[in-house]
Amino acid sequence: MRLHDQGDTVLKVVALAGGVGGAKLVDGLAAVVPAENLTVVVNTGDDFEHLGLSISPDLDTVMYTLAGVANPETGWGRADETWAFIETLETLGGPTWFRLGDRDLALHMERTRRLRQGETLSEVTADLCVALDIHVRLLPMSDDPIRTIVDTNEGKLAFQEYFVARACEPVVRSFEFHGAESAAPAPEVIEAMEEADLVIYCPSNPWVSLDPILAVPGMRKAVQARPTIGVSPIIGGKAIKGPAAKMYAELGVEPSALAVAQHYPELDAFVIDAADAVWMESIRALGLQPFVTNTVMDSDAARKRLAQEVLEFVGELELAL
Amino acid sequence: MRLHDQGDTVLKVVALAGGVGGAKLVDGLAAVVPAENLTVVVNTGDDFEHLGLSISPDLDTVMYTLAGVANPETGWGRADETWAFIETLETLGGPTWFRLGDRDLALHMERTRRLRQGETLSEVTADLCVALDIHVRLLPMSDDPIRTIVDTNEGKLAFQEYFVARACEPVVRSFEFHGAESAAPAPEVIEAMEEADLVIYCPSNPWVSLDPILAVPGMRKAVQARPTIGVSPIIGGKAIKGPAAKMYAELGVEPSALAVAQHYPELDAFVIDAADAVWMESIRALGLQPFVTNTVMDSDAARKRLAQEVLEFVGELELAL
Repeated sequence: MRLHDQGDTVLKVVALAGGVGGAKLVDGLAAVVPAENLTVVVNTGDDFEHLGLSISPDLDTVMYTLAGVANPETGWGRADETWAFIETLETLGGPTWFRLGDRDLALHMERTRRLRQGETLSEVTADLCVALDIHVRLLPMSDDPIRTIVDTNEGKLAFQEYFVARACEPVVRSFEFHGAESAAPAPEVIEAMEEADLVIYCPSNPWVSLDPILAVPGMRKAVQARPTIGVSPIIGGKAIKGPAAKMYAELGVEPSALAVAQHYPELDAFVIDAADAVWMESIRALGLQPFVTNTVMDSDAARKRLAQEVLEFVGELELAL
Repeated sequence: MRLHDQGDTVLKVVALAGGVGGAKLVDGLAAVVPAENLTVVVNTGDDFEHLGLSISPDLDTVMYTLAGVANPETGWGRADETWAFIETLETLGGPTWFRLGDRDLALHMERTRRLRQGETLSEVTADLCVALDIHVRLLPMSDDPIRTIVDTNEGKLAFQEYFVARACEPVVRSFEFHGAESAAPAPEVIEAMEEADLVIYCPSNPWVSLDPILAVPGMRKAVQARPTIGVSPIIGGKAIKGPAAKMYAELGVEPSALAVAQHYPELDAFVIDAADAVWMESIRALGLQPFVTNTVMDSDAARKRLAQEVLEFVGELELAL
């Protein structure tokens, strides 16, 4: 059966997302799915403490993207940004490797203030979404601290040290999600999954964006119980942004949409770019229904179109929806 | 004897200072006393923690003034300031009663980061002075936390709550300097006093700027052992800036230069404005040598002239210098 009529989606959707690519598809979904039907579960493995601030880079990227203030050049921070704080910090000899814009800083400061008061990351995130006029439900994967550690040829590095301070230069060997085993999914995450007609793996880094989410106890089981579709973050052997392709190569796997499909055997369907149509049969052989379209989200219209197509693909699936 | 020749001051000077008025005279002194001969001991009773930051308003005012970046309109913060942080914090529902400029914030953040690493306020202040190209020695009165509490008709208020949040509206009854008894003077403070040819009480608020400094154990004794001269912060019954006159009135004392002289019986000499010449004999009767000049520091030249005159007045004193 087809689950939605043109322009009138009735699916309850949960999207799992990391940073830039995930945020773009989420933004597209927000344009085609009624807000009350869309829940986004965001990676917090990149979260870290810096200058006494609790920083949640992926939550921020998704929030800024949905609020329409994300910086499209950098992939982090805000477009309407000024830099007086960090420039002055530099003259005072402070640490400036993590670039904090003046407006961005306010978000970290307010989050930190409220966490320190004893509120949870979920509660703070919900209120920040209200302040930013975001209507979809945005949930951190967990309110407990989970920290992605990158094991490299230079030793184990905290994620932001690897990602920002070292600019992804060290060669990766494996990943650890410290705290994951003893963490609980954030409130509403499992309930949202159980109610979902569809779980979408956004085109985020499999190793350090979606694997941490799936490492939260109960998540894999919840995912496996639902219809699932993923969108490849690798197009033509490359990631649009970030180190996903570099990671695959360093781990001895040819980076490709097929490699990502192999990463997610639990998926029912997988969306790849037209540039990767060559992998269709291999993906089908893995037990995933392949769909091919243009997956490059280089405009607001492209985000919306891809989101719409993902929902349409699902409508074509023979799933117990 | 005269202790200095024109333009060649040889006195070793310690100045005790609070915020705006004190900072201005310190700035004038820095223009006429060689940097190696000038030590400034600054009130830290106004210090407080806000948004997780360790804020030292008087140290900041003195530093910004000496660095030439102070905001002459507000009496706090920097002139070259932007407000993106606090404006954004407001949209996020954060506390904005204490106005933190983007550049100002960098100073608080760096101080806080280093205090958290275990450095002392003295050490951090010394390095911030280097970064701000300040050459005189700037010392907090203590590295231990001392907090001015204002007892008012509305109860006891932390200083910044009284001063900023309540805009000095509650009627004061008395002042407490929590932590003072068990605090130690910061390193070099007592040594600087012992080596000083002259201790200057800057035109700062007696109740909440200089009294806290004098409440640090050992300070009164050190002051009394040295030649001392004060400059009245009250001119024509009013304070140029701040609540000093209002405080005197609320405590049942007519605000005047004479009242300030009575506040400081330990002084050898006291400088009052020409507008207050009427108090000369009353001040002399207290045992303080009065000097009269224009004490309004409404320009860089006026700051320098007043500083120069203070040093010249001292040269006229019959003191065991």
